[in-house]
Amino acid sequence: MVLLGIDPGFKHAGFGILALQDKRVMVIDCGCLNLPQAKSLQERIGIFHTFFTEKIITYNITHIALETPFLGKNTQSFLKLGYLRGIIYLLSNVHALELYEFAPRQVKQAVTGFGGASKEQVALVIGRLFPKLPVQSRLDITDALAITLCGVWSTQNKIRL
Amino acid sequence: MVLLGIDPGFKHAGFGILALQDKRVMVIDCGCLNLPQAKSLQERIGIFHTFFTEKIITYNITHIALETPFLGKNTQSFLKLGYLRGIIYLLSNVHALELYEFAPRQVKQAVTGFGGASKEQVALVIGRLFPKLPVQSRLDITDALAITLCGVWSTQNKIRL
Repeated sequence: MVLLGIDPGFKHAGFGILALQDKRVMVIDCGCLNLPQAKSLQERIGIFHTFFTEKIITYNITHIALETPFLGKNTQSFLKLGYLRGIIYLLSNVHALELYEFAPRQVKQAVTGFGGASKEQVALVIGRLFPKLPVQSRLDITDALAITLCGVWSTQNKIRL
Repeated sequence: MVLLGIDPGFKHAGFGILALQDKRVMVIDCGCLNLPQAKSLQERIGIFHTFFTEKIITYNITHIALETPFLGKNTQSFLKLGYLRGIIYLLSNVHALELYEFAPRQVKQAVTGFGGASKEQVALVIGRLFPKLPVQSRLDITDALAITLCGVWSTQNKIRL
C-alpha cells in the first residue's frame, strides 16, 4: 500500500507519500509543488497533472487521500480548487486508485487528538512521528502528510470515518 | 477553425461543435453526454474526459468555449462543476486549444439580443440559425450551441468581450 496525500492549491500544492511496510509507516516522499503565478490557469493545471502522474507511476501509488474543502469568502478560489480536485479525481480513475476524503477536523482530530488544532500543532505531531523530516518543514508539507497519514490509518481501520 | 462549446454538468453535458468554412458557420456535431448517476464521481469524470478527448481528436478541434459559472444555492454542485471545468482546462492545455469564456448574460445577449433571455428563446434563435437541427433539440444542446457560436463570433471579432 502506497498512499499519496495532496493538499491542492494554485500557488503551492503540498503532498506526502507514505508506505506501510511491516506495520510501520514510512515516508517515501514529500514536498510542495510550486505553481508559477506567471503561467495561465491551463498551464498550471497541466503542470499539476503531469507532476502527480509522474509521482503515481514512479512510486506505484495505490491510494489517494484528500481533504474536503469548505467555501470561504472567495468563491472564485473555491471554484478553482475544484479544478485541481477534478484532476485528482481523474488520476484516481485513470490509475484505478482508491480515494479517501477527510474533513479538516477529522484530520486534526486523528493526528493531534483535537479537531480544532492549529497547523503548527499538526506540524509538531508530524515532526515527532517522522523525526527524519527536515525540522523546519513547511506547513503545506506537514498538512499534506497529516492527510496522507489519515489515509493510511483508515485503510487499517484505525480511525472511524 | 473548429470550435467545441461545452455546457458541463454531472447529469448531462451538452456540447456543440461548429466550424467556420467560407465565412459560413456549420454544425459539425452536437449532442448531450449523459453521465450515469449510478457510477462514482471518479468514473463519471473519467467518462467525461475520454468522451471529449475523442471529440477533440476526431474533429481536430482548435478552440474551446465555456460559460462562466455562478454560485447558486448548492455549494457542492458548484464545487463539482469545478471538477469538470478542471478537466476542460486540462484538455485545453494538453491539446493546445485556445479557451474562451463567456458570462451567461453575454451568451444570451449575443445570440438573442437580450441578456435576460430564457433558454427557450435561445433555443428558438439557434433553431432559426441552424434549420437542419432536429426541431425538438434539448435545451442542453441549444445552450451549448449558443456558447459555441459566441466562441466563433469572438474569434471573428463580431462580439466584444
